[in-house]
Amino acid sequence: MKDLINIALDAMGGDNAPEAMVQGAVDALNYSDDIKLFLVGKEQEIAKELEKYTYDKNRLEIVNADEVIETDEAPVVAIRKKKESSMVKGLQLVKDKKVEAFVSSGNTGALLAGGTFIVGRIKGIDRPALAPLIPTKKGVSLLIDCGANVDAKPAYLVQFAKMGSIYMENIIGIEKPVVGLINIGEEDSKGNELTKETFPLLKEAPVNFMGNIEAREIPSGKADVLVCDAFVGNILLKYTEGLGLTFFGFVKEAIMSNLQSKLGGMLLKKSLKKMAKRFDYTEYGGAPLLGLDGLVVKAHGSANAKVVKNTIIQCIKFSNMKINEKIKENI
Amino acid sequence: MKDLINIALDAMGGDNAPEAMVQGAVDALNYSDDIKLFLVGKEQEIAKELEKYTYDKNRLEIVNADEVIETDEAPVVAIRKKKESSMVKGLQLVKDKKVEAFVSSGNTGALLAGGTFIVGRIKGIDRPALAPLIPTKKGVSLLIDCGANVDAKPAYLVQFAKMGSIYMENIIGIEKPVVGLINIGEEDSKGNELTKETFPLLKEAPVNFMGNIEAREIPSGKADVLVCDAFVGNILLKYTEGLGLTFFGFVKEAIMSNLQSKLGGMLLKKSLKKMAKRFDYTEYGGAPLLGLDGLVVKAHGSANAKVVKNTIIQCIKFSNMKINEKIKENI
Repeated sequence: MKDLINIALDAMGGDNAPEAMVQGAVDALNYSDDIKLFLVGKEQEIAKELEKYTYDKNRLEIVNADEVIETDEAPVVAIRKKKESSMVKGLQLVKDKKVEAFVSSGNTGALLAGGTFIVGRIKGIDRPALAPLIPTKKGVSLLIDCGANVDAKPAYLVQFAKMGSIYMENIIGIEKPVVGLINIGEEDSKGNELTKETFPLLKEAPVNFMGNIEAREIPSGKADVLVCDAFVGNILLKYTEGLGLTFFGFVKEAIMSNLQSKLGGMLLKKSLKKMAKRFDYTEYGGAPLLGLDGLVVKAHGSANAKVVKNTIIQCIKFSNMKINEKIKENI
Repeated sequence: MKDLINIALDAMGGDNAPEAMVQGAVDALNYSDDIKLFLVGKEQEIAKELEKYTYDKNRLEIVNADEVIETDEAPVVAIRKKKESSMVKGLQLVKDKKVEAFVSSGNTGALLAGGTFIVGRIKGIDRPALAPLIPTKKGVSLLIDCGANVDAKPAYLVQFAKMGSIYMENIIGIEKPVVGLINIGEEDSKGNELTKETFPLLKEAPVNFMGNIEAREIPSGKADVLVCDAFVGNILLKYTEGLGLTFFGFVKEAIMSNLQSKLGGMLLKKSLKKMAKRFDYTEYGGAPLLGLDGLVVKAHGSANAKVVKNTIIQCIKFSNMKINEKIKENI
């Protein structure tokens, strides 16, 4: 029997847990023979959900965890107090090398804090970063950081640039990825205190730095790695989602506005659907916490079964490409 | 003869000056009998452009200004050094009450600095704010601040909330406008240092404060007044523009992808065009600098003649509604 990739899943985290988590896990198992899954959470609830499905029982284990960290809990406190939570137990599995990856849709701040305390950081990295992909004209760009470190320092942003470059080169396959510093003007001297101090540091850093990038240019795909502090990143990420939905709502409205438009809409349906996929976050799976000494992947808080499945499948690639080892070597 | 509203225009500011400025001015003159325009800038260049058009010569004056402040100049230095610039001279006209409004597409930072130094602030306002409208499902929301004060203090944000509320109530006609603090979570305790300190102040302020608003919810129109520091505001504003363009590009691509889609696109053309207008910044005219003791309006840096015309026409409403007087009374 070949070596399986062991992946743990937080069965209790996210808006649609445990139903969507369990379904996504089963779908991933049935999709790939290369993985074995560890569902971490309340044993009875998980077992009850699992009864609905057919799957290879040899490749799925339940790891009991009696507590759940909720979305609105203070991250550090939650991680320290809830030792029996699915999140803490899942992170411990990574730490103990019992699994190669841990996927969670739960509290982002807690996952970052827990990742830092339990799994630990790669030497040379001050803060792990949450780095999702966003759609552009060219394909995708990496938005780093969107995590919970809202008051960032210039040195962190330089580390983000390096980690993001390694990610885009190894996972997405872009040679010498272009790094842009998100800013309110293209000129070198523009920005707030943070970006002004970061600019000269990025110029000296071993990355392909293009300079500042204005938000207007983000969707063009000019920069493969978009560097910013987590407050700005989080806002951009969520605005992309919100504006995408609104935009499609407007298109729908335009289509439904009269008989002629309805007919046009019918003819366009297939092409528009294909296009909509590019704005659909469920297509992109999860985002890794870069900079941890082990693989921890955040899936969207409202992840459905499809996102969960895609995120688990993504872990196979992360694992094969040894993304964290590459960051370790290059920092 | 009735009293005309005197409006000055920076004929030299912006990417398309002086051509677009002069054409927009003439279009505005021909559209409204209520205004008289003062074109500030290089006399010969303006006169040469004016030769192309027919208009009421009694309602247009050229105010010569030999210097131009460029987009990439350091704002404060430029304002102090270039006393003969079109921007400084235009602002001086407002200060001297020779005109009721000054419109410029030039350097935003310089306009804010010049507005503060030359026209002066309303008592009780620490920083004037640039407050453009952005499209939402419900109509429009005011994004305040998008200006050049990138390292804001909590007290400024409270002033922005008050000024924004007065604007939305008086200019857009929304009763008790809802104020939201742009943040990375809905919970009261979320955010960076600035938003965490601002939250309790806004709770106590005499505005209709809904609490934090996540970026995902901005396009829903839940909040009429969106409060943030200028770095975040500027990024959101420009990202809206960029993403709108990309989105329309994607729709176009979908339409052109095959014969059936092309036919569908033809049938949908009219409805889609109507929809596109909502994302077209040229429809919204300019954005006032709220908090100055006189009316100064910023038009988009790449404003074309249509934007210039719309911004001038907007000034009639600003003037009639006495927006600055209302801010003065209520701060």
